[in-house]
This record gives sequence, C-alpha cells and structure tokens, in this order.
Amino acid sequence: MKEISVAHGAGGEQSRHLINNLILKYFGNPILNELEDAAVLNTLGKIAFTTDSFVVDPIFFPGGNIGDLAICGTVNDLAVKGAEPKYISVSFIIEEGFAIKDFKAILSSMRQRASEAGVIIATGDTKVTPRGKTDKIFINTAGIGFLPKNANVAAKNIKNGDVLIVSGNLGDHSIAIMNARHNLGIKSNIKTDSAPLNKITQELIKTLGKDIKAMRDITRGGLASVLNEMTSPQIGFVVEEAKIPSSKSAAAAARLLGLDLLEMANEGKFLCVVSAAKAKQALQIIKKNKYGKNAEIIGLASKEVRGKVRLKTRLGPLRSLNAPLGELLPRIC
Amino acid sequence: MKEISVAHGAGGEQSRHLINNLILKYFGNPILNELEDAAVLNTLGKIAFTTDSFVVDPIFFPGGNIGDLAICGTVNDLAVKGAEPKYISVSFIIEEGFAIKDFKAILSSMRQRASEAGVIIATGDTKVTPRGKTDKIFINTAGIGFLPKNANVAAKNIKNGDVLIVSGNLGDHSIAIMNARHNLGIKSNIKTDSAPLNKITQELIKTLGKDIKAMRDITRGGLASVLNEMTSPQIGFVVEEAKIPSSKSAAAAARLLGLDLLEMANEGKFLCVVSAAKAKQALQIIKKNKYGKNAEIIGLASKEVRGKVRLKTRLGPLRSLNAPLGELLPRIC
Repeated sequence: MKEISVAHGAGGEQSRHLINNLILKYFGNPILNELEDAAVLNTLGKIAFTTDSFVVDPIFFPGGNIGDLAICGTVNDLAVKGAEPKYISVSFIIEEGFAIKDFKAILSSMRQRASEAGVIIATGDTKVTPRGKTDKIFINTAGIGFLPKNANVAAKNIKNGDVLIVSGNLGDHSIAIMNARHNLGIKSNIKTDSAPLNKITQELIKTLGKDIKAMRDITRGGLASVLNEMTSPQIGFVVEEAKIPSSKSAAAAARLLGLDLLEMANEGKFLCVVSAAKAKQALQIIKKNKYGKNAEIIGLASKEVRGKVRLKTRLGPLRSLNAPLGELLPRIC
Repeated sequence: MKEISVAHGAGGEQSRHLINNLILKYFGNPILNELEDAAVLNTLGKIAFTTDSFVVDPIFFPGGNIGDLAICGTVNDLAVKGAEPKYISVSFIIEEGFAIKDFKAILSSMRQRASEAGVIIATGDTKVTPRGKTDKIFINTAGIGFLPKNANVAAKNIKNGDVLIVSGNLGDHSIAIMNARHNLGIKSNIKTDSAPLNKITQELIKTLGKDIKAMRDITRGGLASVLNEMTSPQIGFVVEEAKIPSSKSAAAAARLLGLDLLEMANEGKFLCVVSAAKAKQALQIIKKNKYGKNAEIIGLASKEVRGKVRLKTRLGPLRSLNAPLGELLPRIC
C-alpha cells in the first residue's frame, strides 16, 4: 500500500483495511476501536462543542503539518472557552494518489498532539475523491470539552479597565507558511507556532476563575480581527504597539513582505482578557508554560473608545486598528 | 454578492459579512448566534458523538443535495446508536467562485432537515480554497446525541435467533446519483431516499428497550457491508434475497447497470436487529413512519453460520454475501 486509492473511501474491504491497518494503528483507543457509527462518551454538566476544517497549503511546513494544526486548532477553540478538551473527531478528505508515507507522517503528528493535549480521538471518517478534486488532503476536526463550574469566559464579561495579555510572539505561523508556499527564500528559522494551549488556559481558569473574562485564539484575521470581534457598544480596546510581542526575524520578514503582524493568523497564541487586579498573576501563569514564555500585557479594555480598537503606535499617535477587510493569506490553516 | 470569494474564508470583514448576512440568516439560533469559538451545551449522562464529511458528486440530484445528506447522514449515525440527536456542527470547504444562489439552496435544505430532525446547529466553520482546489463544495457535520438510560445498541448484543429488519427499499440513492452524474438517461422517478431516521429509532428504543440489539444505517458499502461488519466469531446472518425490499424501477436500473442493490449506499435506510419476541412489534413501529413504510423482515442472526453472511437466493441455493471489495460508486455521499 503506497498510495491512497478511491477504493479506500468506498466503505468496503479496502476501507476496512485502511482503517484497521493504518488509522487505528496510530489513533487506536478503546472508544475509537469500537468502530460503531458514533462514539459513546460520558459527560457531566456543561460541555463546549466546536469544529474546524483545515485546508492549509502546503500541507507540510517548517515545524508542523496540516494534521498538527487540525488537532491544535480544535483543542485551542475549546481551551479559549475555558473548557477542558476531552474528545475529538477526525475526518479526512483525501485525493486519490496521496502518498501513504505522507499520510503516516500526518497521522503520527496528530497522535502526538492529541496525546500532549490529553484529548481522545473518539470517532472519525475518511472520504477519497478522484485526482484533481481535492488539493491533496483536507482535515476536519470537531471537539468536545468539559466546562468547569466556575468557567464563564465570553466577550460580554469584559469591563472597563480589564487587561489584555497576548501569550507570545505573533506572526511566526503565517510567515513560515508563506515562505514554504512561495519559496520566498527568506533565510530564517521561523517555524509555525502551532501548539495546544489548554494546559495554560485550564490553569488560568482554575486559579483565577471569574477574573478571566474572555479568551480568544489569535487565528485567521490575527489580533486585529480578534480585538474587533470582542468590542461591543459598551467597550473598546487601547493597545500599545510597542508592547505586542514578536521575534526580530518575524518582524523583519513582515516588513519585507509588506504585511502586518497584527493581521496574521497564529496557531499557538491567544489573547486573554483578565481583571486588572489579577493581571500580573495571569501573566506569570502564562509565562511559566513553554508555549507562553514571551507573553506580554499589551493594553486595556476601555469604555472611552467603546466599539473601537485604538493602537498607540511606536511613534506616538493613536490610530484605529480595524479588522482586515479581505483575504490576507489564503489557506493559512 | 453573487459568488464566494477567497476573502469570504479569511476571517476578516468579508467573512463576517458571509456569516452574518447569509449563514446566520438560515441557521441562526441562540447558541450559534453567540459566535464564540465553541458552543456551550448542557448535557446529562452519556452522549453519542459522530462525524462525517460529504463530497457527493453532483452536489444537486433528484430529491436532494449535499447539504441534505450532510444533516441526515450525521443525524442517522447518532440515531442508529440509539441516541437522540441534539446538536450538530457544520463546516464548509467551498471553491472560490461557487454561486451564492446554490449555497443558499444548500443552506435552506440543511435548515429544513435540521428542523425536521430536531437538531440544533450549534457551531460551524467556513473555509474557501482557490478555484480548482476543491470540487465545488464539501461539507463536514459532526453531531452530539443524548443516550437514553435504557439504550445499549451495539453489534456485540446480537444473539442467535435475533431478527433482521430493513427499513425500506434499497438502492434509490445510488441510482439517483449515478443517473444524475453520468446522464444515463434512465427514465424514472428514482430519487434519493435521504431522510432523518431518528424519530423511528427513538420510538424503537423507547418502546422495546434492550430488545433492540443493534442498528446500522445502510450507507457506503450497502447492506452487504453492514451485515459483514456485524458478524463476529460467535454470530453470522442468514438473509432471504426475495424478502429484501426494493422498488421495481430501482431493481431494473440496477440490472441494467450490472450493479448489486445489496452493495449500494442508501441515505435513509437502516438495518434493525431485534429479539425474535419483539420482531413483529418493531416492524409495526417502523412501517407506521413515512420513512419506513416498505420495511421488511429479511432474515435472522444465526450461530450456525458464525462469522459469515449467507444469502438464500431467489433460485434456492445459499451463497456467501461478502462485503464489496473496492469502490462501487465513488463520491456517493
């Protein structure tokens, strides 16, 4: 078996072969091994439920691959709701002729990330399309997380004076993808920042409870989108450009490409809005995790600028930070 | 807005426009309208969790479309586990240039089917790829269902003498798709059988409890696959060919195409395995629902033929009914 064939997605013997001899070898666990049409799970109280499809191009890039993103992306969507990610579904749409070697590399990354995040791959599906109908492989993941009783994380909780923390350097994922896709030849060690953030978010919730007002993973549309989405007729944000963390190499690459780090998708960064009283403690919790070591306080929620995001630029003047209008980097995740 | 553009999937203003002015107009409900990264849901006890990606070609066909299948398919995967489908996620992968008119038709069918099945569209995602990278539109749905306390539906419960019921005519969906895809010009009124089966399955569980041993929706690989998957070293099945329901026109079309109705995917049929004592009652429950009116008892579970499926042909002799080996009808769902 060297390539995916259409028969691998047909529901017959060859489908079973692919599932038993490949997918279950990587993902097998007592729940998934049942191979029933749906997985049976125990839950208690409130759950969080999310889904994401991944169509990133290229599918392999410095520091990760599409499978890695598919696990981390869904884990992080649950994490920023304050949930403990528990179960994940994995659905593949694969182009006929896709190399089994590459599929194994993807499965292996997914298993590793699921294990790191502590999520169980509970159910799945595989479809195969003829050549030219799918660009190599697309992956959908849906996830279920348990919500602790004291979690109540939503943009509507944000009050005047709450503090904004970004969990680390922005831009790495987008620049790594751009460089790999277009062979830009930017000589750098910039890698995707793809990472599961649930260990950090769970400690924030456990330690600081309702003082954690809202969290968002900083994906498509970047920090500019996330901040604008969280504004309301009652509240806005003031952000200091100089405080927003980024590596020198990412900042240089962004300048070279004429792109704005604040509009770029990340796959392992989140924005945390916390009460002023607990901001320092939240920053400490984030910084002591390896995925949060470059975290910084970047600004404040303010009723003065309600409905808007205002950026204090490095040169001094305030300007509006708007959500990006159109497509910046297609197929970034 | 006449066409999907790459910017519709970029996470910026245009994405928000697509979501607010189109998707939420069709799917809006208090949970989805929150537009948080994950939906918050109340659950109690055990849940069922499933996922499926839909890549059917063509996306519109007699009696349905890809969106219709995406709701019914996931609803039915939950239903045959004995669960009450409750929440569904919807994730679109759309090719740039896809007509908004067609997207609206798909959204509309999905809303209607979700409403009929009683499921809430709780969370979603939209990605757009450049032209030529996706074949029009692919849809992933994941679903969560509540499991009643008395539900314990799994192939391992099947005992010698249990009765097999097929819920209606086989083959219609596959023939409708083939005819639409290849312009076969088969003059018939054959339409997809796509339908939500949860009202039937829930009444079976509620009325007959543990006497409902196992259920499977008869999708990819057809009845032949489903029966073979449910065999074990302890149990097999004997099926009477003459009892398997199909319409005259579907049977004629299958003969014409040289295809076997027993290997064809259906989107609104299931196999129910029930204790002999309650078989008649189960058949009555199925037949009184509009999606089960052609249901028939087709055979028995038997330890005599353990590990195998044996077919009593119309002409008399018994033959093995094996799972189809390769691809029968690619992109049937």
